[in-house]
Amino acid sequence: MTSEFEFITNLKNKSAKFPQPAIRVGIGDDCAVLAKDGKTDLVVTTDLLVEDVDFRLEWTKPEFIGHKALAISLSDVAAMGAKPVWAMLSIGIPEKIWKTNFVDKFYGGWFALAKRFDVALIGGDVSKTPDKIVIDSIVAGSVQKGKAVLRSGAKVGDLIFVTGNLGGAAAGLELLEKGEKIKKGAKNFIQKLLLRQLTPNPQIEIGQILGEKILATAMIDLSDGLSSDLAHICRASRVGAKIFADKIPFDENLRKFLTQRRKDAKAQRKENHFLEDLDYALNGGEDFELLFTINSKKKFRLEKELKNFPFSCVGEITANAEIIELITNKETTILEPKGFRHF
Amino acid sequence: MTSEFEFITNLKNKSAKFPQPAIRVGIGDDCAVLAKDGKTDLVVTTDLLVEDVDFRLEWTKPEFIGHKALAISLSDVAAMGAKPVWAMLSIGIPEKIWKTNFVDKFYGGWFALAKRFDVALIGGDVSKTPDKIVIDSIVAGSVQKGKAVLRSGAKVGDLIFVTGNLGGAAAGLELLEKGEKIKKGAKNFIQKLLLRQLTPNPQIEIGQILGEKILATAMIDLSDGLSSDLAHICRASRVGAKIFADKIPFDENLRKFLTQRRKDAKAQRKENHFLEDLDYALNGGEDFELLFTINSKKKFRLEKELKNFPFSCVGEITANAEIIELITNKETTILEPKGFRHF
Repeated sequence: MTSEFEFITNLKNKSAKFPQPAIRVGIGDDCAVLAKDGKTDLVVTTDLLVEDVDFRLEWTKPEFIGHKALAISLSDVAAMGAKPVWAMLSIGIPEKIWKTNFVDKFYGGWFALAKRFDVALIGGDVSKTPDKIVIDSIVAGSVQKGKAVLRSGAKVGDLIFVTGNLGGAAAGLELLEKGEKIKKGAKNFIQKLLLRQLTPNPQIEIGQILGEKILATAMIDLSDGLSSDLAHICRASRVGAKIFADKIPFDENLRKFLTQRRKDAKAQRKENHFLEDLDYALNGGEDFELLFTINSKKKFRLEKELKNFPFSCVGEITANAEIIELITNKETTILEPKGFRHF
Repeated sequence: MTSEFEFITNLKNKSAKFPQPAIRVGIGDDCAVLAKDGKTDLVVTTDLLVEDVDFRLEWTKPEFIGHKALAISLSDVAAMGAKPVWAMLSIGIPEKIWKTNFVDKFYGGWFALAKRFDVALIGGDVSKTPDKIVIDSIVAGSVQKGKAVLRSGAKVGDLIFVTGNLGGAAAGLELLEKGEKIKKGAKNFIQKLLLRQLTPNPQIEIGQILGEKILATAMIDLSDGLSSDLAHICRASRVGAKIFADKIPFDENLRKFLTQRRKDAKAQRKENHFLEDLDYALNGGEDFELLFTINSKKKFRLEKELKNFPFSCVGEITANAEIIELITNKETTILEPKGFRHF
């Protein structure tokens, strides 16, 4: 019985038996990278979304599902430092859903996000399913020849950064599981956390700046969770990492949610509540922020290029291959990857 | 309530609002066509396969599903006159199937066909599903710049051809529905018809010759059925067609199957059994042969280029926009598209 990651490694080894000069990077990064012309490479990714596994109709709206289907693939393109260009969309629908306005609203959400980033829908497929909706999202992007940012480029001494803030999407999922609903117009922290989970915002602009300015040595999008996704970078780059717990940017709505929950439960302030809270940011998936590494000499330049965006330095690459140390003001522990996996 | 084809037309109109110079052909052909470099274009297609809609586990084998998932997308690439280059594969699997050897055998079938045509697997996605297997197959190919063979190029007076022979896959499906099973080693006509349905053979070589030699004016693969697929060409090219019933190449195993069935039923030879039989070839889908048109002056050249392959001239393009006439030795009738559709 293989895990999802072992399975992907097996496939990668199998497909490596058919080498082709046009394929710069095959299985195992956020996107595959293909030679396009003398100046550019094409990056391409696909993401499968399944009803009742990746989304629930009673938790979300058709527009949000359309948005998210595109957003998660755009996030993969961003993680290569590329600019998204075109997309395809396959959708399988039960007959009873086909008869509603679901499909129109779904594509409405998809096109609204596509327009923001000038992504063209060039094809797809429609099929019937027995009872669940399935969506396969395919997005391709463009990047300077040989300059796609891979998971494998992190070097010992590089600084580790994340964009935005973390943990909000995981809290949103928890709230949905507890029965919280999207309410039109409402703007409290609960609603913001729900939206953080249901309508992720792909970090296309930052990804592109990092790619164009050749700033990042390695990059991945935070889909599974920081602990898992940093482990992917460490494995691909054959390095380790240390992360400073107090540097991790915490979602402010998540903070409000945790404070409220403690108040409601009249809980005493516990010694370890800091680490408990941190779990959302370390192991919660689907924030769709970017995790990247840079040569420490480029820190000043990075700050200049990204001056209009939120980002934080959270740690440093080490020589301790595949070991991630989590440093708090009290102790250093080994951070095991605990993010999302299907199998 | 829109049909599948109306829905695709709507999407095509919506996506046409985001014109991009790199997109030569968007939604509405067998593949999208994208500018690649100064000499070549990229064609790309995706096909969604759903358990209990597009295949049944009790009818087939995991290897066959892997083969078919790739074959149907290769067939779309062939229909553009392109050479397949790379592929991605998304698969959603219920947990109980993940625990079996299904996935290994499925990829075994996929890779065996990929190897024949030198197609590299460059990416994909794996997800869990609640209870049915879903597969999204993505294949890209390469074609001379501006030379992809579209559905829209047929001209009045062009001759209409099909490769191979027709109706076998529909008969195979009927046999599966009646409970016939694949038997190892058996090679009678029933087994051949089952395999025709379960392991289609994409016409890559012929498609590529037609593309490279710039012979076909329009082309489509026979996935929905001759009546539907010819209607797609007629609509896209704003032309009509006449088809000669006695020229349609009939699957020899289908002929044996029909003869056997009549014998078993001790049926009298009926006046209209010819048309009844023809229904398999006209409206049965999934033969995955190619349907193409050529300028009549190029007939001799076509015969030379395709001398090693079976193909037949079945009719002629007319000025009767979107009308397909079926001509038998007795009468001319209008052929309505009756091929497969999901909705």
